[in-house]
Amino acid sequence: MGADWLDRVKWDADGLVAAVAQDAASGRVLMLAWMNREALRLTLETGAAVYWSRSRRRLWRKGEESGHVQTVREIRLDCDADALLLQVEQTGGIACHTGRERCFFRRLEGGGWVETDPVLKSPEDIYRPHDNKRPGDNKRPEDSKPLEDSKRKAP
Amino acid sequence: MGADWLDRVKWDADGLVAAVAQDAASGRVLMLAWMNREALRLTLETGAAVYWSRSRRRLWRKGEESGHVQTVREIRLDCDADALLLQVEQTGGIACHTGRERCFFRRLEGGGWVETDPVLKSPEDIYRPHDNKRPGDNKRPEDSKPLEDSKRKAP
Repeated sequence: MGADWLDRVKWDADGLVAAVAQDAASGRVLMLAWMNREALRLTLETGAAVYWSRSRRRLWRKGEESGHVQTVREIRLDCDADALLLQVEQTGGIACHTGRERCFFRRLEGGGWVETDPVLKSPEDIYRPHDNKRPGDNKRPEDSKPLEDSKRKAP
Repeated sequence: MGADWLDRVKWDADGLVAAVAQDAASGRVLMLAWMNREALRLTLETGAAVYWSRSRRRLWRKGEESGHVQTVREIRLDCDADALLLQVEQTGGIACHTGRERCFFRRLEGGGWVETDPVLKSPEDIYRPHDNKRPGDNKRPEDSKPLEDSKRKAP
C-alpha cells in the first residue's frame, strides 16, 4: 500500500492529529489521544491502536503496560482531515489509566465536574510491577519483557 | 455559578481544548472542534454548542449560518482535563459543513479514504445568501441579520 493516504492527513505543526476512540460495541467514546504519521501507519499495520504520547514524547502502543489493547475495527477521517475516529474493541473493558471504562468519567453538574463512572480496577493493580503480582512469586520484571534484552547480571 | 469548573480545564498554549460532539440519540460521533474558555462558558449558559473557530479566529456559534444548532445535553471532561465530550441533539440532522450528518464521512478502505456518507443537503442550499433563497423574493441579506446594525444607505 502506498503512503498517499497518510499524505491526505493534515498533520499539525507538531506532526499530530487528534484521534477519538469509540467502543465499537457500546458506542461509548472512550478517549481522545494523538497520533503522528508513524503511529497511524502502525495502527493500520498491526490492527491495534498506537498513539503518540505528548507527555512522554514517544510512540505509545496502547496497552503496552496495562494490557488494555485496542483492536481497531475502523478508521475514519473528518472533513478537514485533521481528526481521526477509531472504532475499537477495548480489551479488558478499560480504556482509562485511572482504571475506568473511559477517560470521560467526569460530568458537568451543578457547577462542578462530578465523577460518575466507577473505577473497575485500581491503577495499582493495572500497573504494579510484575514481581509484586503474586506474593511469594520471585519472578523479576525483566522476565516479563520478552522484547527487551536482559541486561541484568547473574546474581 | 463560580468559574472554578472552568479553571479545572487544562487549556493548551492557545487557550483551547478539543471538544467531541456525539449525537445523543444515535451515539454517532459527529465532529471534533475546539473551545476556549468563553466558548465553553457560553455553551453552558446558552445550552447550545459554541466553539472557537481556529481558521476564523473567533467564537463560532454552531449553526449561526446553517441553522444546524447543537442543543447540548451533557458535557464531560476527560482524565487529563484537556478534552471535552458533548452529548448533543443535532438540529437538521446535519453537523458537517459539507451537508453530511457527521464530519467523519471518510473511511480507510483498501489503502485510501473512501467517502461513505451521503450529502443530505448541498452546501449551496445550506449557506446560499438569503436573498437568493426563493426566486423572486427580494428580501436583502441585512433583513435576516437582526443582531447586525444595518449600515446600508437608502437607495
